[in-house]
Amino acid sequence: MAKLKLSVDPVSGMRDLLPRDVARRDYAINIVKHTFQLFGFLPIETPTMERLSTLQGKYGEEGEFLMYKVLKRGQKLEKAVDGTELADIGLRYDLTVPLARLMAGHQQDFLPVFKRYQIQPVYRAERPARGRYREFMQCDVDVVGLASLDAEAEVISAGAAALNALGFSDTDAYRMRINHRSVLKGLLDTAHVPSDLHATALVAIDKADKIGIEGVQQELQRRGISSASVTALSRFMSDLETETPMATQATRLADMLAQHPEGLQGVTELQTLALLLAEGPCQSRLRLDPFLARGMGYYTGPIYEIQFPDLTSSGGGGGRYDELLSLFTGKRIPACGFSLGLERILLIMEERDMFPDDLNRGPQVLVAQMDQDCAPYLHGMAHDLRKAQIRTDLFPEVGNLRRQFRYAEKHGIRYVLIAGSDEVAAAQVAIKDLVTGIQVAISRDQAAGHLQTQLQKAQAT
Amino acid sequence: MAKLKLSVDPVSGMRDLLPRDVARRDYAINIVKHTFQLFGFLPIETPTMERLSTLQGKYGEEGEFLMYKVLKRGQKLEKAVDGTELADIGLRYDLTVPLARLMAGHQQDFLPVFKRYQIQPVYRAERPARGRYREFMQCDVDVVGLASLDAEAEVISAGAAALNALGFSDTDAYRMRINHRSVLKGLLDTAHVPSDLHATALVAIDKADKIGIEGVQQELQRRGISSASVTALSRFMSDLETETPMATQATRLADMLAQHPEGLQGVTELQTLALLLAEGPCQSRLRLDPFLARGMGYYTGPIYEIQFPDLTSSGGGGGRYDELLSLFTGKRIPACGFSLGLERILLIMEERDMFPDDLNRGPQVLVAQMDQDCAPYLHGMAHDLRKAQIRTDLFPEVGNLRRQFRYAEKHGIRYVLIAGSDEVAAAQVAIKDLVTGIQVAISRDQAAGHLQTQLQKAQAT
Repeated sequence: MAKLKLSVDPVSGMRDLLPRDVARRDYAINIVKHTFQLFGFLPIETPTMERLSTLQGKYGEEGEFLMYKVLKRGQKLEKAVDGTELADIGLRYDLTVPLARLMAGHQQDFLPVFKRYQIQPVYRAERPARGRYREFMQCDVDVVGLASLDAEAEVISAGAAALNALGFSDTDAYRMRINHRSVLKGLLDTAHVPSDLHATALVAIDKADKIGIEGVQQELQRRGISSASVTALSRFMSDLETETPMATQATRLADMLAQHPEGLQGVTELQTLALLLAEGPCQSRLRLDPFLARGMGYYTGPIYEIQFPDLTSSGGGGGRYDELLSLFTGKRIPACGFSLGLERILLIMEERDMFPDDLNRGPQVLVAQMDQDCAPYLHGMAHDLRKAQIRTDLFPEVGNLRRQFRYAEKHGIRYVLIAGSDEVAAAQVAIKDLVTGIQVAISRDQAAGHLQTQLQKAQAT
Repeated sequence: MAKLKLSVDPVSGMRDLLPRDVARRDYAINIVKHTFQLFGFLPIETPTMERLSTLQGKYGEEGEFLMYKVLKRGQKLEKAVDGTELADIGLRYDLTVPLARLMAGHQQDFLPVFKRYQIQPVYRAERPARGRYREFMQCDVDVVGLASLDAEAEVISAGAAALNALGFSDTDAYRMRINHRSVLKGLLDTAHVPSDLHATALVAIDKADKIGIEGVQQELQRRGISSASVTALSRFMSDLETETPMATQATRLADMLAQHPEGLQGVTELQTLALLLAEGPCQSRLRLDPFLARGMGYYTGPIYEIQFPDLTSSGGGGGRYDELLSLFTGKRIPACGFSLGLERILLIMEERDMFPDDLNRGPQVLVAQMDQDCAPYLHGMAHDLRKAQIRTDLFPEVGNLRRQFRYAEKHGIRYVLIAGSDEVAAAQVAIKDLVTGIQVAISRDQAAGHLQTQLQKAQAT
């Protein structure tokens, strides 16, 4: 291997996770997993790679651009004639499309109703920003096979309960914003936006959080929406301020959509959904936000999103997608889901110091080494302690005792076990408590028991 | 979205994991993680993607071919002129090279000695076979910063302890085969194989498990090794049968390498290592296999591998790689590691029925729905049970009670909670035990407590 020095940073937009990061991430994921299990969801996992035919055409214009594609190999690559045929597989872009593909092959096992959770990373070549990475973890729950709003109530409640369990339990810690695709359609129709411009108008409206109403107005005009329509939409947006209580908001919206039966039906569904959620973990955090759009092309009914007060980007969300499965099954199978954006949640938990102090699962005892001849004895000693479920580090080199104490202190290890040739001959060890400075001599057989007692005492205080 | 039916199978060589698979995998990973923590290893995680400059030139000829490369995007792709410039990043091929890259950027935080574990999938475009997938989980421990054999003893012990904890505790459940790159070099030199043919000869010798000694002879000849050398190597291979006890094997080997100081030094190191492992979790499973080669190009010292009696491919292994980090740091930092091949281990555990029965974390109680007007009450009821840590499924649709009982039975749910308008008016519920058929009426407030008691009783019997 040549002696050239290689770049040491992770690929742009991706991260190395150090021990403290992994411990915190594991802590949060375990809480989310446990919560999803409390709601009766069962786990699945799907491959990192999917066929491009599975991925393409599901995520809108932006998705096509942000998707990672995997280069063909060997003869297949040689035969590829132009840029479009260089790849036939890509990286997982979300967890919903893979679920739809998997369900199609397992309808008999899982239907009529399947409630699944899935916690895996997804990949999008977005411009990196605070809390936005190109590889990020999603935590999804979905109910497949049900058209009823009870399914929405379950997935929204599961998302909210997970947030509450992570420590976002104050009423004002987050909002659960809900909307309905039919409400959006109703508002756009009522503002006389032509159907073929709905999609492009929604892209503009979706940016309201980031660029404000004025920004949206400009963006709408740039996208070819008439001035009259922009004015009408702007008036709706000011009149339907999102912090308005749910019931008032629904009444106002029903007035605006009085001439639009499909839109009115959307409002009624959101009111029913609010009723189902009233006693659940969402409680008073629910808000009807009639301009919430959500990017994914596959949503067909209610949509919902977590909003943290001090973050413009969402903490997760989801919606109903009753058409997606038919692409794989050839028949209509209703479904809806909720996805937690773990990276942003972790970021807030980090900033607000919401992690417990004792997540470190580092070593509790260090076995020191002073004499090469004693090495087999000390390796055996370490084995005894590990068998007794004590997290034990063996200083993996014979050397200066002071240096080994420093190593223990640096790693937060309180107890150091020491044995030289005298101790080995007598089948003894010395155990030093670096906090009290007290050192005791004890037989090898009793060392594990003694340390277990000390560790329990230390934990109790 | 167009109505065409898409392929529903996972990409070739990759798998969908269903709830039972995920539960078993989680069970095994938690045991491995816990064991690695007992040995004082700390967790890191690295991105799925790495620069091609990080990956290439580390895994030998085969690795270059099996590596997945990610297509450039947008302008960078347009500018790419030929096949070699279509990609500049690739998928993680193992966990060792990413560790080496990460260490270079964190020397001050972690050195002089860093013990890390890492459990993540890696990607290789190998021909799929039984227990061999293109995306597979590796569980690695490595000690960075130490040249001493204590480091090898720790990583080998951690690997063996994890296997033991998973249930491979019989002495004959597996062998831990060890060898040394210097021993291989000594044998090849002694058989007069020219240095520039060592690498190609090792590729042939590495296949002994799969193609037998005769197969290796043919392969050596095809690779340009002289007949005299092939005869010498074959004699060594017959004389050094791998089931020979460690001490006898070492003596024979020392005789053969009497004229080769470097080879002899390798034998001495293996004897020292055996001494350090004598009282550890490997115990009598250790075997000196002088023709164990291991594929990775970066190994420099002792190498080791788990062998299961009924599997030709290995269950994991590792070695010392004292040169790899210098590619990233510019200076020599010794290191060694051990990697468990989780997929093959899971396969054997599956075949031998080594998983506990109670891994299912599915719902314990079903809340049935008979009346749309009661839905908010029942959603609230489900919330009460979940707050009491009872895994609760809400039948997410109003309907026939018999159908809901069948749903409960199919999902192994013993208790069904029922409330119609009468129960709602009286703030009561009925709870039916599907095993005994007994149904009790109880106030809503007491339902969670009652079910907790029932579930504890059911678990105790």
